[in-house]
Amino acid sequence: MIQTDICIIGAGPVGLFAVFEAGLLKMRCHLVDALPQIGGQLSEIYPQKPIYDIPGFPSINAQELVDNLMKQIEPFKPSFTLGERVETVNRQEDKSFILRTNEGTEIHCKVIVIAAGLGSFEPRKPAIEKLEEFEGKGVAYMVKNPEHFRNKKIVLAGGGDSALDWTIFLSDVAERVTLVHRGETFRGAPDSAEKVFEMAKEGKIDLVLKSNITKIDGNGQLKEVHITSTEGAASVVAADHLIPLFGLSPKLGPIAEWGLQIDKSQIAVDTTDYSTNVEGIYAIGDINTYTGKLKLILCGFHEGAIMMQSAFKHVFPDQRLSFKYTTVNGVNAF
Amino acid sequence: MIQTDICIIGAGPVGLFAVFEAGLLKMRCHLVDALPQIGGQLSEIYPQKPIYDIPGFPSINAQELVDNLMKQIEPFKPSFTLGERVETVNRQEDKSFILRTNEGTEIHCKVIVIAAGLGSFEPRKPAIEKLEEFEGKGVAYMVKNPEHFRNKKIVLAGGGDSALDWTIFLSDVAERVTLVHRGETFRGAPDSAEKVFEMAKEGKIDLVLKSNITKIDGNGQLKEVHITSTEGAASVVAADHLIPLFGLSPKLGPIAEWGLQIDKSQIAVDTTDYSTNVEGIYAIGDINTYTGKLKLILCGFHEGAIMMQSAFKHVFPDQRLSFKYTTVNGVNAF
Repeated sequence: MIQTDICIIGAGPVGLFAVFEAGLLKMRCHLVDALPQIGGQLSEIYPQKPIYDIPGFPSINAQELVDNLMKQIEPFKPSFTLGERVETVNRQEDKSFILRTNEGTEIHCKVIVIAAGLGSFEPRKPAIEKLEEFEGKGVAYMVKNPEHFRNKKIVLAGGGDSALDWTIFLSDVAERVTLVHRGETFRGAPDSAEKVFEMAKEGKIDLVLKSNITKIDGNGQLKEVHITSTEGAASVVAADHLIPLFGLSPKLGPIAEWGLQIDKSQIAVDTTDYSTNVEGIYAIGDINTYTGKLKLILCGFHEGAIMMQSAFKHVFPDQRLSFKYTTVNGVNAF
Repeated sequence: MIQTDICIIGAGPVGLFAVFEAGLLKMRCHLVDALPQIGGQLSEIYPQKPIYDIPGFPSINAQELVDNLMKQIEPFKPSFTLGERVETVNRQEDKSFILRTNEGTEIHCKVIVIAAGLGSFEPRKPAIEKLEEFEGKGVAYMVKNPEHFRNKKIVLAGGGDSALDWTIFLSDVAERVTLVHRGETFRGAPDSAEKVFEMAKEGKIDLVLKSNITKIDGNGQLKEVHITSTEGAASVVAADHLIPLFGLSPKLGPIAEWGLQIDKSQIAVDTTDYSTNVEGIYAIGDINTYTGKLKLILCGFHEGAIMMQSAFKHVFPDQRLSFKYTTVNGVNAF
């Protein structure tokens, strides 16, 4: 079991900066994120997009902001559980919490901070016969570890950046990559699309346009993918893995079951300290709501700073808080 | 008379970033600061000190943060009145305000944002006979424009960085610079102190240590400075200007007279929109107070973002606010 002062659910920018504010008060943090990498929406949805409204940065790329935040919190040595979703929260007799993820990881902490942005992202599932039957048996909606696909026959489906990027990347790893796309053109970056067309022309991948996957089959493990063209032609492709990449849709997920006061899929908080109605659980960033709320990364940073002052009394009930400004002593003084 | 949507009192980091948030909502800002330069405490008190708690910057020098913020708000073309202090605020019939500074500058606006940090800084005045009699007639507590001292006989007093820095700088401008200091060593940066000692040895300046200025005199205009050493020796130096540099002490100043609700020298605000008890006047950053308030630059940034949403209805009473995220269109779309 992982032991920590504070468990932060969500490793996006707001969750990351909260580690800094906790660290100034000598509280240690463990972060859990359903996504396989750090950075939340920034890394998952728009890593190369410039952001203009972070104070002090006339412009900064989303991924660069994440990298900077990771460097900023390094002195406080946060630990991470990635690619897992917190399913249950159980209050202990001493008022501490034990969280359990969908993979069985357990985290014991005194304070929970929900910084889960739009919630856990759920993959959008296309209408393919027997799709759910083969989940975990060849069907995956995310590429967590590309090595998993080495020397395998892979079918990808989709027309956006994820489909294009993974087609290009996995073509060097897999035995064979087939990309199936409903349209003739791609929504993703033009240079990625161009590269995919070129790779298909060179025979490096199979590109199946104007087609949909209608059914999959196998024997306990995925074996074949049935494709139907918009003109009605049917074909079957041998496959070890199918990766449908039709984007992610935000969902509050299991958080909705923890007894928190929910207001239009967001968690209601007290703006004095961004606490929820459950003692010891706080919510910051895009996932919370209050009168005047603005969904800005900046506001989530502020909420994390304020919130940690309140969390302190749960982590160190017998200590008096003396807040020091970093401009006086620097981070290493903490 | 200067016409603007929003008059921001205080050109420190929080006042500067508020220009950005106003600009996103197409509101124009004019900033007034009692200090002769932009940047507030950061530029005045610790320009070269690193700051560690601005999200996304593992470390940033105070002046660099100010420079970055100026670059960030450039697209919104703010205007400035520097080295003047707002003395009076008068409500007009149409609910707009006219502000008047100590130099008579008038600003007409629909919204006032007080982002004055610790308030206007008042120079600490040493106990020198007739000091106040010669204020503005040779005695100044700040160097606003060094050219004012060209080819003049200057006496500086103090032992900190300001005294050292201005002694070094003005030695190239003035006819003669004399630095009077009570001690034998300086509190300022060691390399500045070393340079001052060297300049004294070379005869480039006069350095009078272990001495106090006890009296000044003149004939309507400053003529002489009387110095007494700690051993009792008295001397008189001819001077056109005396600049005592004993630091600045924070004062709420005239703001205290505007009918705002004051709580321990800070302005009480409603955290829903950081409005004061006077409609159309907001307070953000270190100068405001509310339950849970943390005096962090970050929190002032957040307060400015929230506050501008509320200010919008005063500036554009007939328009509906539609908030756009900069990540979608960038700053130039605004």
